[in-house]
Amino acid sequence: MKDIDLSEIKSPADIRKMSLPELTKLAGEMRGALLEKLSVHGGHVGPNLGMVEAVIALHYVFDTPEDKIVFDVSHQTYPHKMITGRMEAFTDPAHYDDVTGYTNPSESPYDLYSLGHTSSAVALAAGLAKARDLQGGKENVVAVIGDGSLSGGVAFEGLDYGATLGSNFIVIVNDNQMSIAENHGGIYADLRLLRNTNGTADNNLFRAMGYSYRYVNYGNDLKSLIDMFSSVKDIDHPVVVHINTMKGMGLPVAEADKEEFHYAGPFDLKTGAPLHEEAPQTAPEDYSELFAKGMLRRMKENGKVVAITAGTPGVLGFDKARRKEAGKQFIDVGIAEQAAVDLASGLAKGGMRPVVGFVSSFLQRAYDQFSQDIALNKQAATFVVFYGSMFGMNDETHLGFFDIALLSNIPNLIYLAPTCKEEFEAMLDWAVKQDERAVVVRTPGSVAVSNTEIELLDDYSKPTYEIVREGDGVGLIGAGSMFGFMQQAADLLAQQGVNVTLINPRNLSELDTAALDSLKDYKVVITAEDGIIDGGYGQKVASYLGESPVKVVNLGLPKEFLNRYNYSELQKRCGLTPDQIAQTAMSALK
Amino acid sequence: MKDIDLSEIKSPADIRKMSLPELTKLAGEMRGALLEKLSVHGGHVGPNLGMVEAVIALHYVFDTPEDKIVFDVSHQTYPHKMITGRMEAFTDPAHYDDVTGYTNPSESPYDLYSLGHTSSAVALAAGLAKARDLQGGKENVVAVIGDGSLSGGVAFEGLDYGATLGSNFIVIVNDNQMSIAENHGGIYADLRLLRNTNGTADNNLFRAMGYSYRYVNYGNDLKSLIDMFSSVKDIDHPVVVHINTMKGMGLPVAEADKEEFHYAGPFDLKTGAPLHEEAPQTAPEDYSELFAKGMLRRMKENGKVVAITAGTPGVLGFDKARRKEAGKQFIDVGIAEQAAVDLASGLAKGGMRPVVGFVSSFLQRAYDQFSQDIALNKQAATFVVFYGSMFGMNDETHLGFFDIALLSNIPNLIYLAPTCKEEFEAMLDWAVKQDERAVVVRTPGSVAVSNTEIELLDDYSKPTYEIVREGDGVGLIGAGSMFGFMQQAADLLAQQGVNVTLINPRNLSELDTAALDSLKDYKVVITAEDGIIDGGYGQKVASYLGESPVKVVNLGLPKEFLNRYNYSELQKRCGLTPDQIAQTAMSALK
Repeated sequence: MKDIDLSEIKSPADIRKMSLPELTKLAGEMRGALLEKLSVHGGHVGPNLGMVEAVIALHYVFDTPEDKIVFDVSHQTYPHKMITGRMEAFTDPAHYDDVTGYTNPSESPYDLYSLGHTSSAVALAAGLAKARDLQGGKENVVAVIGDGSLSGGVAFEGLDYGATLGSNFIVIVNDNQMSIAENHGGIYADLRLLRNTNGTADNNLFRAMGYSYRYVNYGNDLKSLIDMFSSVKDIDHPVVVHINTMKGMGLPVAEADKEEFHYAGPFDLKTGAPLHEEAPQTAPEDYSELFAKGMLRRMKENGKVVAITAGTPGVLGFDKARRKEAGKQFIDVGIAEQAAVDLASGLAKGGMRPVVGFVSSFLQRAYDQFSQDIALNKQAATFVVFYGSMFGMNDETHLGFFDIALLSNIPNLIYLAPTCKEEFEAMLDWAVKQDERAVVVRTPGSVAVSNTEIELLDDYSKPTYEIVREGDGVGLIGAGSMFGFMQQAADLLAQQGVNVTLINPRNLSELDTAALDSLKDYKVVITAEDGIIDGGYGQKVASYLGESPVKVVNLGLPKEFLNRYNYSELQKRCGLTPDQIAQTAMSALK
Repeated sequence: MKDIDLSEIKSPADIRKMSLPELTKLAGEMRGALLEKLSVHGGHVGPNLGMVEAVIALHYVFDTPEDKIVFDVSHQTYPHKMITGRMEAFTDPAHYDDVTGYTNPSESPYDLYSLGHTSSAVALAAGLAKARDLQGGKENVVAVIGDGSLSGGVAFEGLDYGATLGSNFIVIVNDNQMSIAENHGGIYADLRLLRNTNGTADNNLFRAMGYSYRYVNYGNDLKSLIDMFSSVKDIDHPVVVHINTMKGMGLPVAEADKEEFHYAGPFDLKTGAPLHEEAPQTAPEDYSELFAKGMLRRMKENGKVVAITAGTPGVLGFDKARRKEAGKQFIDVGIAEQAAVDLASGLAKGGMRPVVGFVSSFLQRAYDQFSQDIALNKQAATFVVFYGSMFGMNDETHLGFFDIALLSNIPNLIYLAPTCKEEFEAMLDWAVKQDERAVVVRTPGSVAVSNTEIELLDDYSKPTYEIVREGDGVGLIGAGSMFGFMQQAADLLAQQGVNVTLINPRNLSELDTAALDSLKDYKVVITAEDGIIDGGYGQKVASYLGESPVKVVNLGLPKEFLNRYNYSELQKRCGLTPDQIAQTAMSALK
């Protein structure tokens, strides 16, 4: 058998010519290249290492791109990208950044969607299948979804609808016995039972939902996978193929600690130790750490305090040790944001003090629950927003600058934007103590900043702006993580003899009208927020001051799905550097 | 046995003293009172008639309000209200409007939540159960959910989490074999199988999710229900009790046509005929009718056009006859808004022209899918918003004035607000023809208005404002259903010698900056929209014109959960009558 030259794999046609031994060798080569890239570049380690064989088998059996495969979350598609014309991005360090970490239609016709949120693949694929049926097509439609993503409501909705298609519809359930952390939910007992019975148990979630069902116990064995996929190719009804795979396969440390190696930065291939520039103990403090430490303290002070996550405990700073320390006061509902919000509502109604932590981009998965079950029903739950910033995640699927516009326009919901870690703690302390209001607290930026001069309050229920510096003519309102830039702009202006009024608004959902009234005869008021301008905080100010002679300038982000942008370039584009803010003020004074 | 005097039923304690024959008589009396009220007052006919016995049995067996019952959607709680101190509202016409149509904590301690959206009860109840467990309580926690609501993703998320509680948690699945219309989804085959096997089939969705399971075939038989509920009272683990009930029981026309009598206005008790003031053929045309007729035409013109609903075909004007006429081009995914949006995304990707119709208040259940799977992925699906207006539904759970702020701030999504039925048709025609953009079209108000003078376009892709009347000094921008009031205000102002510029903005998601630039030296620009001011269209205008000397006044609704408000009082409160608008303009000119 000749050697496999990865650079010769230009498309799935190149692997369809291969024999099983060659494919096996290919899998080994691909896994080796992945390990190499992941160890120096970082990325979704576990999901991709576990799916090498399944992805090869899928492209071997199905006639992609005519046959259509939708990968859920698509964070497991590095092997898919390798096979579909993008090998170089995994073998040549100079090209490592040529591809995104998710499927991306602008990269390849083999990528159907830009996906980064979980659980949607089945419903999307059902749409593709329905379009095929209505147009008399014959192609296979395949959805690939992990066991962790199955707990999201839209996965269930998609499965429920897909079962009624009455035509070719193939759902591959990639069961690696893990979500990002361990799985939570009643369905996982059934998946375990199915694995333990080699798929023969009567108690079968998928059959109960209307699917025929097949099981592959060796989900990293190419022959088993190829045989099974071949057997369902061109099937005439909806089928679930449940494959049992090993997350992190081929990297012993990742096989052993699946949570740690779900996603990782650069690491030592032998030991798995992270290759940080600085030692971990000197790494900048982050809000995950701060949050977890603060919550453990609050839990000890008050047995009614509970922290809740929807499948991302690490974002909340709750690693395994801290989860153990929190005990019953830490709840992971699995990837199920809607249930997380409703659970918090029920807990609050039942007298507890729930605090839910969300990645900014994911909280939008539960808008209806925020609106109906929290805000309308005035349940005093607290929500902490992580990575809600232009300086957070910069993949187009995970942007953190839509949450202000989303949540601050819901009645009865207080949206607080602290400027620094001290204020974050104070606001959270208040939110957890009081039992009358639903509160959102946004972590200020991505790295913890300290500002001991910010005035802390015991009560944040009313919108009261902090007048940090009193000047005249120019008002700078810096919301949350933008406050620091505004403060620097104020310094620059002071150097030019312009003494501005500098304001920390604290609350982005309600206006402090008395404070704003005092600015009505100013020349200009500039607002800055770490979110889109449209629908955000600054536009409330512009509207309120619309009848006054004062000019209002709203700074913030454009309403766009930016992708892998450069942070400082974006800041400049938005006019949010201290220099630019000062210039904007000077122009308005002319 | 003595007669039952309904007025003596003040609380569940009064029914717990009764014998089975007395309870049976009570059920009959209650059903009679319900029929009487429903026939003259209207309301959710089918759901309530079907649940009389189950609600009596629940309150008979469980020690409410210490034991907690969360009713999903809570549109089936008229019998519950009768038993829990609010009988008069069902027996005395003078008090018919004393209670809302949903559970309402401000009415009674027996009502835990104000609920009107489906599928959340299980997750909410799971929170109550968890709060109990963490505090060492002993009460029963019961969620009551209908088969129709089961298809919503949050129901599944709640069931999945609830199964892990390991403690008392009772889910009553009220299976009346109907959603609002017929059910759609793979799970319904399993529910049917369970009914047909008296609950004994191996293929059991609820067991597969981790619940123990009981079945009551005669779900309108008090003894069966009482025996079953007694057997699960104080159970120490999660259990599903599946009860087979008859929707509309006791009203033959409702039993026969369950869809028509899910919700009904006043009707003749004998014939079921609606008691309209005017004959149906002279009733005002509504957008449901217009939409369905227009869509059937588009479907015939183009086989790729598909209409999609998430369980509310009637809202889209697709009654049974029209569904039959549309054939495969009409899709009901069941109550599963997320799947509806993703299905549309898949259909668009597959070359079809999908159009999804949503009640304004329900589209917020799929925000993440709008954002990620439609807008980010630029799929050319069309969404039509019904009842998106202050003149639509006025229950606090069904308000129609949040959708502009919600959807118009999503990138890549064009939000169109037609002013009249002619423009609605033109915009929808364009949206369905083009295949490059995702488009939202809002029905203008609740009753179809005609305006043959509005300029119609072939292409609405770019934001171009219609300058309906050119004046000077005062600009009135009337969005969608508010345009008519603005036009009347313009007339009033003309009578006072003030010739204003009157604008129909058409597009609420992007600004026509050229049109706005021409207003910069005006005295005042007034915007009016049929939605909350916060995060809405007017604030974009205020922000854009913030640096210009022109005053901007934004008219619209307050950010509040209003409940059963009076339409014209609210219009006045918002300053949205033509008189008030004219006065606002005159004041600004002074």
